[in-house]
Amino acid sequence: MLARDLPGVPPGSRVRLQGWVHRRRELATVTFLVLRDRTDLAQVVVRTGAGHAASDVLPVVPPEETTVEVTGTVTANPQAPGGVEVTGVGDANPLITPLTDPAETPPVELWRPALTAALPTLLDHAAVAWRHPAQKARWEVAAASLRGFRATLDAAGFTEVCTPKLVGTATESGANVFPVDYFGRPAYLAQSPQFYKQQMVGVFERVYEVGPVFRAEPHDTVRHLAEYRSLDVELGFVRDHRDVLAVLRDVLAGMADAVRASGAADRLGVDVPQVPDKFPVLHFADALELVGAPADEPDLAPEHERALGEWAWAEHGSDFVAVEGYPMAKRPFYTHPEPVDGQESGGARWSNSFDLLFRGLELVTGGQRLHRYADYVAAIEARGEDPASYATYLEAFRHGMPPHGGFAIGLERWVARLVGAANVREVTPFPRDLHRLVP
Amino acid sequence: MLARDLPGVPPGSRVRLQGWVHRRRELATVTFLVLRDRTDLAQVVVRTGAGHAASDVLPVVPPEETTVEVTGTVTANPQAPGGVEVTGVGDANPLITPLTDPAETPPVELWRPALTAALPTLLDHAAVAWRHPAQKARWEVAAASLRGFRATLDAAGFTEVCTPKLVGTATESGANVFPVDYFGRPAYLAQSPQFYKQQMVGVFERVYEVGPVFRAEPHDTVRHLAEYRSLDVELGFVRDHRDVLAVLRDVLAGMADAVRASGAADRLGVDVPQVPDKFPVLHFADALELVGAPADEPDLAPEHERALGEWAWAEHGSDFVAVEGYPMAKRPFYTHPEPVDGQESGGARWSNSFDLLFRGLELVTGGQRLHRYADYVAAIEARGEDPASYATYLEAFRHGMPPHGGFAIGLERWVARLVGAANVREVTPFPRDLHRLVP
Repeated sequence: MLARDLPGVPPGSRVRLQGWVHRRRELATVTFLVLRDRTDLAQVVVRTGAGHAASDVLPVVPPEETTVEVTGTVTANPQAPGGVEVTGVGDANPLITPLTDPAETPPVELWRPALTAALPTLLDHAAVAWRHPAQKARWEVAAASLRGFRATLDAAGFTEVCTPKLVGTATESGANVFPVDYFGRPAYLAQSPQFYKQQMVGVFERVYEVGPVFRAEPHDTVRHLAEYRSLDVELGFVRDHRDVLAVLRDVLAGMADAVRASGAADRLGVDVPQVPDKFPVLHFADALELVGAPADEPDLAPEHERALGEWAWAEHGSDFVAVEGYPMAKRPFYTHPEPVDGQESGGARWSNSFDLLFRGLELVTGGQRLHRYADYVAAIEARGEDPASYATYLEAFRHGMPPHGGFAIGLERWVARLVGAANVREVTPFPRDLHRLVP
Repeated sequence: MLARDLPGVPPGSRVRLQGWVHRRRELATVTFLVLRDRTDLAQVVVRTGAGHAASDVLPVVPPEETTVEVTGTVTANPQAPGGVEVTGVGDANPLITPLTDPAETPPVELWRPALTAALPTLLDHAAVAWRHPAQKARWEVAAASLRGFRATLDAAGFTEVCTPKLVGTATESGANVFPVDYFGRPAYLAQSPQFYKQQMVGVFERVYEVGPVFRAEPHDTVRHLAEYRSLDVELGFVRDHRDVLAVLRDVLAGMADAVRASGAADRLGVDVPQVPDKFPVLHFADALELVGAPADEPDLAPEHERALGEWAWAEHGSDFVAVEGYPMAKRPFYTHPEPVDGQESGGARWSNSFDLLFRGLELVTGGQRLHRYADYVAAIEARGEDPASYATYLEAFRHGMPPHGGFAIGLERWVARLVGAANVREVTPFPRDLHRLVP
């Protein structure tokens, strides 16, 4: 049975638990074994005083982290966690069977309420450090978020797709790609599923993908990884980016609900955001003015994002604020321009794209994409590139695509912000960056 | 509204549909527009005879694959698909608004009932060819399978994990890895999440991952890809591989149920297997004897697998048969040996591992893994390797792991076998192999 269910078992019942020796505490006449399984902790009592010295009644409690099977009797004890503990009956002790050799002393003290190891230690010893209940709960937030993401989209008629991570060209952004030796030919790791998810809108209208993306980020920051999980969404037949933003709202609400339902946030004592029915939206130009930045700034600086986060909380009681209309000059070539006086225009300054800030930090980038073949050719040529090098991508647009848009959420960034971790590496079991390729 | 829901709408209702011009058929006095959206096809009728020549009542039906919005009236017509079609009222025609420029003629005829293009054409023009309803349904089988996989495991207390695809060493098998230039250092693409999912068993007991795996397969076959989706499961506190096989049964049953519920199999006219309550199991030695192979054969040849598939159907009415006990010599170093006379033994000939055959083809490999640190050291040294090069992986075992095991299902192979595709490339939107890196 599972430790979580122990408090519901009538005292006197015989139970069998399996798990790790989380803590071994040897007192004068009693040894406490706190057993940890995937659900919770359970206290097991081994009496070692008078009458328990014979080896047949005195089990050896193996060292911490050894895996064991414990068979014993459920006994009420108001002092024990959950009000119950596992004991023997009469003179007998519970039966404790080690499932492996005694474990070596772990590199971090897992039984302490808080994991106090420095980040490099946590990362170097990930296989062991993530066993700490508080650390484990952080990933449970991530796993619950993935569940909520998919459940929301499945219910809204989206189809999950799997697109290639090995690509033949580095055309999407050009920089920061990892080269791969592909049977002696050059290939690259995909920086995003952008081109493929758009093509799949032509097939399924509404698609999503959860997968790794790879960025050869040459700088070390607390919010960038060389490999991270991107939660990608793309949908057709939208009016503009506001329809995309509405889907993003539903997705984040579904993720927040799933995190709440998992119980992991409660165990961590973190506050899961209430997702408003509609995000507050500011135009980029108004956002610059609001934070007192010059009107010709091309992007928002981190201190601007923080100020906007504070504004959203003060004015709207919202942890989220969307900034729309980012300058075309700073957005990728497939970005749809903002209509000028209701008309589409070639040299538009603003775009139908947005960033969503969560508690003052950019969490999501999204927007409406171009959907006309001729617009793509013009946009690519305007960058001084040859549309022929985008031939297979552009084929989708030559043969009919709907107005569409989408977004991408960085899983690690979402979890870090949610649990209040300063560095995305704290919530990533095996992070990859400029300096780190193991474990 | 969606094409799927049209037959339930009362005749006379005004509706708006959005989708692609699937087929345009121009007759003397009428043009039929078959509209395709993500759910189904719908017939739209444009009258072009006497009284409909004026441009205000005669909409232009754009060429096939153009995206359109259609507004019209639901009209009963027993000859139309689903018994209804969309028409105008009185003299008026339905309103047809193109959402893009007219689409160019597609490279494959999407409106024909069957997609007859040769495989290279299908692959070269994936973005368009996958729009064909039958092709699309094949991926819907894949998407439903993923849903069923996750739902089964979520309900059984498994935690989804995300493990790195960029790894620092090529130690797991040594051969067939793709080298990556990682900030000027050598790295590799992960061939499987094996080492990481085992480490995560130490944290969550029961884990799964859906992700890309990469194999630099130097040969071209109908069942191998250089990048494919692996559905990985690993669980702790098992008695042996038979416990793992029981979870595999439940997972495949959940996948089959989800495929049935999706309707995609019906649309394709394919037979979704009944997953038996327990798989028939043959020992490897008995399997060799059954197919008349020499007793010292180290592996099953494709014709042996076919013969075993026929045996399973004839003897057990099962599309599945598990072969257990594969020779240790052919299994990876982390494989748990089969006990001899109930005792674990160093030089065991057979292993606690299995292959699951589906309709006479290997679909899943799995088994029990070693769980004692000392056994890993011995197994790695027996291969003439240095345990130090596995240090971060082995750390999990030094600090207490439970008996555990797991398996991996190849998504593309499962879908191909299910829909009767001879080549996994037929069910993979953007396959990667020795010769193919685009689109």
